[in-house]
Amino acid sequence: MANLPTNDPVLILVHPQALCESDTVGDGTRIWAFAHVMRGSIVGRQCNIGEGVYVEGGAILGDRVTVKNQCLIWDGVHLADDVFVGPGVVFTNDLRPRSPRMPEVAARYQSKANWLLETHVERGVSLGARAVVLPGIRIGEFAMVGAAALVTRDVLPHQLVLGQPARAAGWVCVCGARLLPGTDRDLVACPQCAVRFRLEEGRVVRE
Amino acid sequence: MANLPTNDPVLILVHPQALCESDTVGDGTRIWAFAHVMRGSIVGRQCNIGEGVYVEGGAILGDRVTVKNQCLIWDGVHLADDVFVGPGVVFTNDLRPRSPRMPEVAARYQSKANWLLETHVERGVSLGARAVVLPGIRIGEFAMVGAAALVTRDVLPHQLVLGQPARAAGWVCVCGARLLPGTDRDLVACPQCAVRFRLEEGRVVRE
Amino acid sequence: MANLPTNDPVLILVHPQALCESDTVGDGTRIWAFAHVMRGSIVGRQCNIGEGVYVEGGAILGDRVTVKNQCLIWDGVHLADDVFVGPGVVFTNDLRPRSPRMPEVAARYQSKANWLLETHVERGVSLGARAVVLPGIRIGEFAMVGAAALVTRDVLPHQLVLGQPARAAGWVCVCGARLLPGTDRDLVACPQCAVRFRLEEGRVVRE
Repeated sequence: MANLPTNDPVLILVHPQALCESDTVGDGTRIWAFAHVMRGSIVGRQCNIGEGVYVEGGAILGDRVTVKNQCLIWDGVHLADDVFVGPGVVFTNDLRPRSPRMPEVAARYQSKANWLLETHVERGVSLGARAVVLPGIRIGEFAMVGAAALVTRDVLPHQLVLGQPARAAGWVCVCGARLLPGTDRDLVACPQCAVRFRLEEGRVVRE
Repeated sequence: MANLPTNDPVLILVHPQALCESDTVGDGTRIWAFAHVMRGSIVGRQCNIGEGVYVEGGAILGDRVTVKNQCLIWDGVHLADDVFVGPGVVFTNDLRPRSPRMPEVAARYQSKANWLLETHVERGVSLGARAVVLPGIRIGEFAMVGAAALVTRDVLPHQLVLGQPARAAGWVCVCGARLLPGTDRDLVACPQCAVRFRLEEGRVVRE
Repeated sequence: MANLPTNDPVLILVHPQALCESDTVGDGTRIWAFAHVMRGSIVGRQCNIGEGVYVEGGAILGDRVTVKNQCLIWDGVHLADDVFVGPGVVFTNDLRPRSPRMPEVAARYQSKANWLLETHVERGVSLGARAVVLPGIRIGEFAMVGAAALVTRDVLPHQLVLGQPARAAGWVCVCGARLLPGTDRDLVACPQCAVRFRLEEGRVVRE
């Protein structure tokens, strides 16, 4: 990518093979080849929208969001600042999908209120490669979802979840490192950056 | 997409960034950006072929089929009318794949009869996001496959299957709602649309 | 694709809708639509790079490698000769990803030494559809990874691994067939091609 101006803080870079139809894309955001940012979507500043990514109208992305290649971000998906969406992550917004033109269900698909559920991903969350997120989920800030996981329930802030369906598997720091139990059993400290947390009613809270 | 004529019942819409080389695409079908419908594939009427979808020669799609973004539909895959293929669903057609130009296996790949298995998806089935279907499978009408599931065995009509490998997890109505047990234990009624079914030899049959 | 010269042993075929910026692509390799082979990647001879595949700078592919549609091959991934990468397979190279422009982690992402782990896939390996490979993994020659599997640990030569996380599930021959136990319990013979192997310290070794 050395021949493209990738670090300009103001310019919006749209690769010649990308499609950007949104008029609300923030400064310094880059949109790579074969990506499609649809009219009606909102993308913040200094985001990186990878190749083949699809951002549907109604999706909202904060600032500094990284969306790796081939992610699918539908209407109703909200990604806060600094979220990392790993390669091939797929969101969803319909819990019981049928083909909308099938005569038996066509009426239901006349109004989004009948089928669309929102998804909220809070600040600094990471979603591993090929994770799938069911609709109607909230993922708390700085949580980490393992590669190939299927998220079927809300995830707590700083929680690490793994598997299909995704289960609690520990806690992670802001920096992404796993939190190890401290000497005091209610205290955990990040082994990488020494930030301290405490466990409070089954949640990790920053000291 | 408000600026494109998406509801015309006759026109075949091929996005300027899509590739359509099949000459058997039905009226009213729409093919979106970065999709590729290959020569020798058959696509019915009023289908919706999402962005980045690949339909290989030899694949057959019925009418009103919805194929969400990035699905891969190979030679030997048959999708009946009104099927919903969720985002990122991948079919397969080779149970023991090797790189076909590897000298030790090149002879096997000289004839499809040596390796290609067909897949049949019956009317009204839904496949959830990122589901994977092994080759040689039949999925019965109106069945529903959960997001991220791996289908390794045949699925009965109206059956809901979840997980990796996908296991039976209940039954669904034509409309997609889960069927709850009725007062008579052999009868189940859809809570959404009141259609009634009975259990007969381990299968759900419409009354 | 019958109208394109796909079997020429010398010509490099780059589909008009593909992007190839690498100057180290071997003779006879074909790169299909919407694929992107980046500057700084190395691709051997007679490879087949499927539609929508992304090969990042720093990735290295041997000869006769088959990469099916939509695979993502990052910096640090090494694929030996004759590897088969099934549709939608995703590699990874960062075990604890965060959005690199998040202020709390931006320093870490200044140097690849802080986060990039390599992956090695040896000769003749097959990776099933939508498999995901965690970073820092070695997959031994002629191993086979099941569809939708999540590879979290090294895989032995000729080993079959299935599931999420992927677990040992048997052994496969060079040709891809499952190896059945022989009459001598330490001997296994391929039912397809009669090549014989022995079990030696928990590994399959060719006789």
